[in-house]
Amino acid sequence: MTRLTIRVDFDDGRHLGHGKIRLLEMVDAHGSISSAARAMDMSYRRAWLLADEVNRMFRTPVLETQLGGKGGGHARLTEFGRLLVDHYRSIERESKVAFAPRIAALEDQLAPVPDEQPEAQG
Amino acid sequence: MTRLTIRVDFDDGRHLGHGKIRLLEMVDAHGSISSAARAMDMSYRRAWLLADEVNRMFRTPVLETQLGGKGGGHARLTEFGRLLVDHYRSIERESKVAFAPRIAALEDQLAPVPDEQPEAQG
Repeated sequence: MTRLTIRVDFDDGRHLGHGKIRLLEMVDAHGSISSAARAMDMSYRRAWLLADEVNRMFRTPVLETQLGGKGGGHARLTEFGRLLVDHYRSIERESKVAFAPRIAALEDQLAPVPDEQPEAQG
Repeated sequence: MTRLTIRVDFDDGRHLGHGKIRLLEMVDAHGSISSAARAMDMSYRRAWLLADEVNRMFRTPVLETQLGGKGGGHARLTEFGRLLVDHYRSIERESKVAFAPRIAALEDQLAPVPDEQPEAQG
């Protein structure tokens, strides 16, 4: 299935795209930045930097974090964090519907993919 | 002005995004891959590889090229190439309109950018 991905570049160089949104969703699902990083096969450092970047991007924090304690630190989306993810995913979902005819026109024109590995015979 | 950029990932790993479309537009404007590469501050090799990739992606070529001769090789968009660029730019343009309220909601929430270099006094 063809996929449309959206990137939002704000005036000042700050941007929001699939990577940051996916990370927020994974933090929400897994309850911490470290677990989200593990699930995304991303280094903890990179995940932390991305999370910190998106957390500073808006007036309202996107993630609430709680350091240390039993079982390590925890993190979860704030109400605004949920709203942010929802805006982004809604744009993607609505794009998919709105542009289905244009995407179908392009799909119709795709060249066949050459078989790189013909199936083994009988 | 906030900008929405679209990337289309087809099923099979082939994708189309801002970079390839911009290259096609620049080839069209400048009349050759080498001039387009220069204008985009991209190596000729990278521009050629990108152009070749998008040219093989669809059943119909996107660029017509003419090698060598007086003044070097020339390239221009085919009719399908123009259609491709038009589909992509239309998706971008229509997205901008359709998602203006969501984008405005996010813009309203952007944190102020800290002044890194305060203006000189007096």
